[in-house]
Amino acid sequence: MKRIGMLTSGGDCQALNATMRGVVKSLYHALDEVEIYGFEDGYKGLIYSKFRMLTEADFSGILTKGGTILGTSRQPFKLMRVPGADGVDKVEAMKHTYHKLKLDCLVVLGGNGTQKTANLLREEGLNVVSLPKTIDNDIYGTEMTFGFQSAVDIATSAIDCIHTTAASHGRVFIVEVMGHKVGWLTLHAGIAGGADVILIPEIPYDINKVVKAIEKRSKSGKRFTILAVAEGAISKEDAALSKKEYKEKVRNRMHPTVSYEIAAQIQEKTGQEVRVTVPGHTQRGGDPCPYDRVLATRLGAAAAQMILDKEYGYMASVVNGEISKTKLSDVAGTLKMVDPESSIIKETKLLGISFGDE
Amino acid sequence: MKRIGMLTSGGDCQALNATMRGVVKSLYHALDEVEIYGFEDGYKGLIYSKFRMLTEADFSGILTKGGTILGTSRQPFKLMRVPGADGVDKVEAMKHTYHKLKLDCLVVLGGNGTQKTANLLREEGLNVVSLPKTIDNDIYGTEMTFGFQSAVDIATSAIDCIHTTAASHGRVFIVEVMGHKVGWLTLHAGIAGGADVILIPEIPYDINKVVKAIEKRSKSGKRFTILAVAEGAISKEDAALSKKEYKEKVRNRMHPTVSYEIAAQIQEKTGQEVRVTVPGHTQRGGDPCPYDRVLATRLGAAAAQMILDKEYGYMASVVNGEISKTKLSDVAGTLKMVDPESSIIKETKLLGISFGDE
Amino acid sequence: MKRIGMLTSGGDCQALNATMRGVVKSLYHALDEVEIYGFEDGYKGLIYSKFRMLTEADFSGILTKGGTILGTSRQPFKLMRVPGADGVDKVEAMKHTYHKLKLDCLVVLGGNGTQKTANLLREEGLNVVSLPKTIDNDIYGTEMTFGFQSAVDIATSAIDCIHTTAASHGRVFIVEVMGHKVGWLTLHAGIAGGADVILIPEIPYDINKVVKAIEKRSKSGKRFTILAVAEGAISKEDAALSKKEYKEKVRNRMHPTVSYEIAAQIQEKTGQEVRVTVPGHTQRGGDPCPYDRVLATRLGAAAAQMILDKEYGYMASVVNGEISKTKLSDVAGTLKMVDPESSIIKETKLLGISFGDE
Amino acid sequence: MKRIGMLTSGGDCQALNATMRGVVKSLYHALDEVEIYGFEDGYKGLIYSKFRMLTEADFSGILTKGGTILGTSRQPFKLMRVPGADGVDKVEAMKHTYHKLKLDCLVVLGGNGTQKTANLLREEGLNVVSLPKTIDNDIYGTEMTFGFQSAVDIATSAIDCIHTTAASHGRVFIVEVMGHKVGWLTLHAGIAGGADVILIPEIPYDINKVVKAIEKRSKSGKRFTILAVAEGAISKEDAALSKKEYKEKVRNRMHPTVSYEIAAQIQEKTGQEVRVTVPGHTQRGGDPCPYDRVLATRLGAAAAQMILDKEYGYMASVVNGEISKTKLSDVAGTLKMVDPESSIIKETKLLGISFGDE
Repeated sequence: MKRIGMLTSGGDCQALNATMRGVVKSLYHALDEVEIYGFEDGYKGLIYSKFRMLTEADFSGILTKGGTILGTSRQPFKLMRVPGADGVDKVEAMKHTYHKLKLDCLVVLGGNGTQKTANLLREEGLNVVSLPKTIDNDIYGTEMTFGFQSAVDIATSAIDCIHTTAASHGRVFIVEVMGHKVGWLTLHAGIAGGADVILIPEIPYDINKVVKAIEKRSKSGKRFTILAVAEGAISKEDAALSKKEYKEKVRNRMHPTVSYEIAAQIQEKTGQEVRVTVPGHTQRGGDPCPYDRVLATRLGAAAAQMILDKEYGYMASVVNGEISKTKLSDVAGTLKMVDPESSIIKETKLLGISFGDE
Repeated sequence: MKRIGMLTSGGDCQALNATMRGVVKSLYHALDEVEIYGFEDGYKGLIYSKFRMLTEADFSGILTKGGTILGTSRQPFKLMRVPGADGVDKVEAMKHTYHKLKLDCLVVLGGNGTQKTANLLREEGLNVVSLPKTIDNDIYGTEMTFGFQSAVDIATSAIDCIHTTAASHGRVFIVEVMGHKVGWLTLHAGIAGGADVILIPEIPYDINKVVKAIEKRSKSGKRFTILAVAEGAISKEDAALSKKEYKEKVRNRMHPTVSYEIAAQIQEKTGQEVRVTVPGHTQRGGDPCPYDRVLATRLGAAAAQMILDKEYGYMASVVNGEISKTKLSDVAGTLKMVDPESSIIKETKLLGISFGDE
Repeated sequence: MKRIGMLTSGGDCQALNATMRGVVKSLYHALDEVEIYGFEDGYKGLIYSKFRMLTEADFSGILTKGGTILGTSRQPFKLMRVPGADGVDKVEAMKHTYHKLKLDCLVVLGGNGTQKTANLLREEGLNVVSLPKTIDNDIYGTEMTFGFQSAVDIATSAIDCIHTTAASHGRVFIVEVMGHKVGWLTLHAGIAGGADVILIPEIPYDINKVVKAIEKRSKSGKRFTILAVAEGAISKEDAALSKKEYKEKVRNRMHPTVSYEIAAQIQEKTGQEVRVTVPGHTQRGGDPCPYDRVLATRLGAAAAQMILDKEYGYMASVVNGEISKTKLSDVAGTLKMVDPESSIIKETKLLGISFGDE
Repeated sequence: MKRIGMLTSGGDCQALNATMRGVVKSLYHALDEVEIYGFEDGYKGLIYSKFRMLTEADFSGILTKGGTILGTSRQPFKLMRVPGADGVDKVEAMKHTYHKLKLDCLVVLGGNGTQKTANLLREEGLNVVSLPKTIDNDIYGTEMTFGFQSAVDIATSAIDCIHTTAASHGRVFIVEVMGHKVGWLTLHAGIAGGADVILIPEIPYDINKVVKAIEKRSKSGKRFTILAVAEGAISKEDAALSKKEYKEKVRNRMHPTVSYEIAAQIQEKTGQEVRVTVPGHTQRGGDPCPYDRVLATRLGAAAAQMILDKEYGYMASVVNGEISKTKLSDVAGTLKMVDPESSIIKETKLLGISFGDE
């Protein structure tokens, strides 16, 4: 008999349910007896011992369903060791719940912060298996995260919609894409949507180079230009600032986001009408695409296999295009960024798409 | 032989190409000889005699294609009689182009402003046939406009995405829906997306009633609430202001749109986390949905029939659920709003969806 | 307090759940006490008293969910009065269940056969309110049924897919569309998908006219032709046969469906390669489109209003483009077919689309 | 100056246009002068010197467009050296066209047969660069082909639709998925669609094991079962036959495809109602999904880079999850099949999905 705790933590994304179903279906198939304890709203449920017992039926029909049946919340890693207003030491509370329920393993689905806490719990002696959840695709130790492709689909669909309206009106359009501090989502959605300019945090832009790219299109007779801009895009000047100076600058920015700032600059420098669209939270919602359903299901099965093999302390991952596993100690604390020298960037540049850097 | 001028004017939307294809395919099928003059960028092309001759092949394969192959621009009705910087009297210039090209008829696709100008040209003696284009569905004299259902699909899809994320995080979410000064789009997308609160310009809201609706849900154990808010939504206080006072107030509003203002008020009054998503221009872009393709094709054929019958001065329309035609003089200058006493509002209220008014 | 029985009967379609949610949400909102008895698998559950009590929570989150939470089955009307192997008189059994549970009203969702049985139960003294469910749109007394537009979307999407492959290979392609004995679905999907030939039961085709239409396209340089063929399409010869002769002929047909027969004939007469695609049951599955969600919700609320007003014996319907109600006695036993003289057919012919009749 | 010939050959699929755009956009961006010769309908255009000069504008706006702007046809490899009725030696004719046009390189997009011919032309001294096109994902030397993920999306969507109808009616449903002689498409769509049984050519099935899996579900209270069956699925008995015997058997099969045969067997052995749906050619049509647009664009850019580097005789490919290149001599003549011992099969089995083999 196995007693498994499970939780989803951090910002939600597509295929969380598909992944949990993958784990649980595999365990029920492999074992005669399993008990699944689903913690509510992420680590919060583990801290405050809020959970419900789940049966196989709870995981039936959720492969295609967005969101998470367990609920989620953000529990910042850096506050884990800081007692809250209630005086609770969160890590000790989690360990207490774990041991009280006599869990064999804790299965954690989450992004970078979540993985760090998972690694901390591992260090504290708990058996932990984790799964890489994020639309940002920024988790170190895996080439792909579930949620990413579904978000690419939504962001691309937004760019597709903007394409027809931009072409009809002959305008410059900016679509601001999510991705936190990395450019994966913008890069993929930008290529898929046929964007002419792609701005990502990893390649700071020079606004004059951006303007040059737009004007080159105008001169060649193109009526419109589409820019895919990451929410974390940053100019060369800003990238040269200290973290503190940059935060201060952002705080005083008169535009709600970097896209609006870029729009104002382009409008001023080119005289062309510029519009901004921000698909926002839609990018992390909705049902998972088939790619993510397969990925999630496979990762889930791989996590179940680890539990069966008692190989704890790993995150199910994708390495060299194949399902694999990566040590939690390697995953935690590192951000997977787009390498400006990588082949995908080179290919994109070869196509003539501008990153605003040259 | 018929010589037909054609233009698309105002904000673009889905199914413009499908409609033009419907007109042109029908004319080519019915007549031995047709000449199609496509004016570029709306009335601008007619004013400045910028056009290109189109053949049947130009309309092949565009049934499913968003945007407009002719381009479009906004030419405010109220400036039609006001000579611009170039001293051109726009109406006279349009009549000149029309007569110079010896057109038999001008086919105009557009929204309310466009219809007004079309009616003006009719009054000036031109043969005009028009088609009702807008995602707002606010054109008087027709129950349905093409573009509307496609926009409903996109806005609904945004609400669907927000639904899963709202449910996972237990948040209040506002989706701001387009629609200009009317609530049709928000009403339909709100019902289709399962919104709990729907705010539209035709039913001014009381923020306390909105808050009450949210708190009623919280009390009944629901973790989240979705509000579909029209870009033109207005509070009871603001609706009581004079037009001038209201404009002044909007100018000084510290929030970019009404949704952000409502979000701030809800957050303050309930303490719940509120997020806003604005799908924006995506709602008018992309490819037409099958419903719009059928509607557009039928309206296009109906317009062609009018040309064949020399019945000018009408807009192809939907009346009592059937394709019909409405006098341009009846269409021009009137806005089709949602009637707060209509059956769709009564049905929606019966369901328990709040309009923030009671 | 109201005690409401509810069942879904006949072939399933999209928006069954959305409709039931519309009814139930409205009743819960309007009344202090409601008891909902959900019968399993259509009339079968009513006959054999198989049901479960449902709460408001059962109807939460099902607006967008395809299928039916109650299950469904086909119970042919003509066998209702014929005792089965178990000797049960089905009508008496249904009345018995109804009275035993002291129901105030029975809410029935279904197609033509279902409506006939609903009318029979009305004649037998039960309070019945019905809702028009079918992808075929063939229910008399309503201009629109829920499920229809969702099926149009799927069938159109199939034609869209075939379009690119037909164009690439230069082939004749037949897409066989559902619709039972009527042509609504094929007509709408055919127009929306840009089909060149549309064959529906209401307009028997002459294979030579079909071939002529294909050859006309070839001569004008078109590389491919798309035919949307209703599963009930019939040739002029076959339409002239007696019902018995026709059935006999179909039984001996060497092709699985009429589309394959037409394909063979075209291939023989033109020498062109012809392919057939049959989307089949996919057309009745999946989640409801936004149009159907709005229609279903409104019809559901209208049915609830009837229950509140004790106006029994009606089907919620669409008349002149508005939500209305139609007497069950008028609905039962009549098929709503496409009128070959209707404006939609005239418009489609004006476009040059061939129905194979002229 | 570079003179590039380009052709698309074999069955069409999604992202052919996106790939060609990737090649051409890159070349135009990198070189001052490029001439693109587009051969019509695959190798046929090269054989009979049917081509048109293409400009950059021809590749604008086609990223999202299904099909191929060049047209395609099947030219069996084994007939390449066999003169046709016109006495033409196809290989010599192709070489003649190539040299006559003084091409620097021939870019070939196609599947297995196409790659074999590309390799033959390479052996004959032509500069060839190829790209892996197929929904089947069966090309050796690349982990992924463009078209595959788009086809997975369509096949999965078909299974999704069937899911709701199967659940509502409590039936066994078979969805027959394309894939030629391999099971990739069925495997991925089956996992993504939540199929309970997946039958692929690489794992011959025992019908009794299939029946056992269905009955296990029935016993555990599940109302329905979904089978994803590859068009090339084969039973253990048939797999034991010689190729000749098997062909003979298929020829005499009373069922149109293997799915119908399996359906009849299940129906007979279980007494349950079984339905078959065949999405067919829709799986290779329609517009490319975002994943395929990115893959196609990257592969196209990689092919352009090879041309710039004069590295001929390769196919652009995916190896270890990264864009790479594979020698045409390694690609030609080998089929990439699903390995029954691979991790994806093991994961799928761990989940309890039956392959009908144990």
